[in-house]
Amino acid sequence: MKIAIDAMGGDFAPESVIKGLNLAKKELPDTEFLVFGDETKIRLYLEDEENVTLIPTTELVDFHDDPLRVVKTKRDSSMVRAIQAVKNAQADAIVSAGSTGALLTAGLLLIGRIKKVERPALLTTLPSMDGAGFDMLDLGANAENKAEHLRDYAILGSYYAQHVRGIKNPRVALLSNGSEESKGSPMIKETHAMLEVLNQQGLINFIGNTESRDILEGVADVIVADGFTGNAVLKAIEGTLSSLFNLLKTTIKNGSLKTKIGGALIKNDLSALKSMGSSTGGAVLFGLKAPLIKAHGNSKPEAISSAILQAHKMVESDVVGKLVTYYETSEVNL
Amino acid sequence: MKIAIDAMGGDFAPESVIKGLNLAKKELPDTEFLVFGDETKIRLYLEDEENVTLIPTTELVDFHDDPLRVVKTKRDSSMVRAIQAVKNAQADAIVSAGSTGALLTAGLLLIGRIKKVERPALLTTLPSMDGAGFDMLDLGANAENKAEHLRDYAILGSYYAQHVRGIKNPRVALLSNGSEESKGSPMIKETHAMLEVLNQQGLINFIGNTESRDILEGVADVIVADGFTGNAVLKAIEGTLSSLFNLLKTTIKNGSLKTKIGGALIKNDLSALKSMGSSTGGAVLFGLKAPLIKAHGNSKPEAISSAILQAHKMVESDVVGKLVTYYETSEVNL
Repeated sequence: MKIAIDAMGGDFAPESVIKGLNLAKKELPDTEFLVFGDETKIRLYLEDEENVTLIPTTELVDFHDDPLRVVKTKRDSSMVRAIQAVKNAQADAIVSAGSTGALLTAGLLLIGRIKKVERPALLTTLPSMDGAGFDMLDLGANAENKAEHLRDYAILGSYYAQHVRGIKNPRVALLSNGSEESKGSPMIKETHAMLEVLNQQGLINFIGNTESRDILEGVADVIVADGFTGNAVLKAIEGTLSSLFNLLKTTIKNGSLKTKIGGALIKNDLSALKSMGSSTGGAVLFGLKAPLIKAHGNSKPEAISSAILQAHKMVESDVVGKLVTYYETSEVNL
Repeated sequence: MKIAIDAMGGDFAPESVIKGLNLAKKELPDTEFLVFGDETKIRLYLEDEENVTLIPTTELVDFHDDPLRVVKTKRDSSMVRAIQAVKNAQADAIVSAGSTGALLTAGLLLIGRIKKVERPALLTTLPSMDGAGFDMLDLGANAENKAEHLRDYAILGSYYAQHVRGIKNPRVALLSNGSEESKGSPMIKETHAMLEVLNQQGLINFIGNTESRDILEGVADVIVADGFTGNAVLKAIEGTLSSLFNLLKTTIKNGSLKTKIGGALIKNDLSALKSMGSSTGGAVLFGLKAPLIKAHGNSKPEAISSAILQAHKMVESDVVGKLVTYYETSEVNL
């Protein structure tokens, strides 16, 4: 297996990316890595070059680049070259912490969609209170969706939970503004009816609507949402956690002596809680013909390593191949 | 001023409602209250009957009632009678902790919309980290919105922040999936352009798009959202706070002795933080011809009192009358 790494993407590139690669290599002794970027800088951090092929690139994609034009304007960037490697079947998957918009657009243009999957979605595994975690999609690859897209997301999410996370018969829920079937926008109601059909056909285990209030409690293994709402809900969860921790810190800092002592005593537990807000691994642009993993721009080495392991797991499980077969043989979307 | 009170709505009715009324009466010595419900039960909790007119009703609206039919099937319920009193100009506003769906539908049918406001919205004031709080609408009165509705919400929210909360030139932001003007669904982009026009006309102080990640930080005084997304974001914030507090409680309970002692020391600060998640007062169904305040079903007396004070403030400021005048004289919506 070969994984392409965009060494120059992200706020702390290439240091964080390469240190993350060092960590991942220890777990994946048989995997080969194609590492795209500035050779000299990469070698500053790379512990050993076994199973690593360095491919020098001269350009950088940054947040000012127009995502729609990156493929043309930044041909020799680490990001575009790494995606090209997947397109040309020189690598099986790609991991990048670079600009989301550029990565998604270039991935879509170069790697392409699984046949019949009209709108690939961003999927990530979020932590839940019961420790099991859940997959949620679309988290914002699309600003607007149709019911047919959400039907695909139910299939995609279900395949991911089952084959990548090893969950048998994953429970799929539809994000709506009430748990009753009658709740939601016309598009959500239409999706609900489609998911009922998939459920009757035994293709997914659809458990109905869920509200965003309950998703962290682990009510489902897969949460299907339109990209606009999924994005808003994810960011609301992140923002609430971040605001709350800042408030807690300020409260303890400015509190009475009693509060300060108490705060110091539970400090370690608090930092453990804080990690709750971060997803494990990266976000997958799911629905492409190969795994494309977007790690957070501010990823530390552990997060990069986790994204690489996720790419490995996706290739190993052949979840994309299984989806290709499903869409080739299924008549649902014809 | 006269305020109609649905004494029988909510999980702890009439006890919580009447105890809340007792509290509010101390703040509002000149306000008259029309209290609808079971006289005998109400008198168990009512401290004094000065300025109170008890109006006996025989029926109850509960969560099983079809909201669309409540006006016909529960004519003698405390909820329908209280709304009728506003419709008949016997009262200036209504407060209820009863079933949201029934209340919104009956309010819409009986009190009616301000002319030209096509889709009234649920608005509530949420706390922000800077202590100022912000108003958000629509929180779910509508499952789907058009850009024209969101344009109304910008006006409504701006009037509310200015006249009820006393904020000069309130900053109005549009909830989207990115802060750039180019971000969002086609409907959100269309709304953005409309709000730019209102801003140029000096009718609102539009500061652009905001993401749900930032709203608790106090980036704006008014957040405009479509009902589906607004509902999902509000519930995501509530759910995250609730999950986090439960996790913190469990962590402290099951932690080491050190953690337990620390937890005990900061316990009071934690409960202060918890109140962060609850909105002040109730949610207004805003855009009707009179103030209709929906208090949480599980409201304690303090929350009911706060909802009554909010109704009083709305009547006193004549925010609804000002909006009626705006829509009568403005040509924006013609």
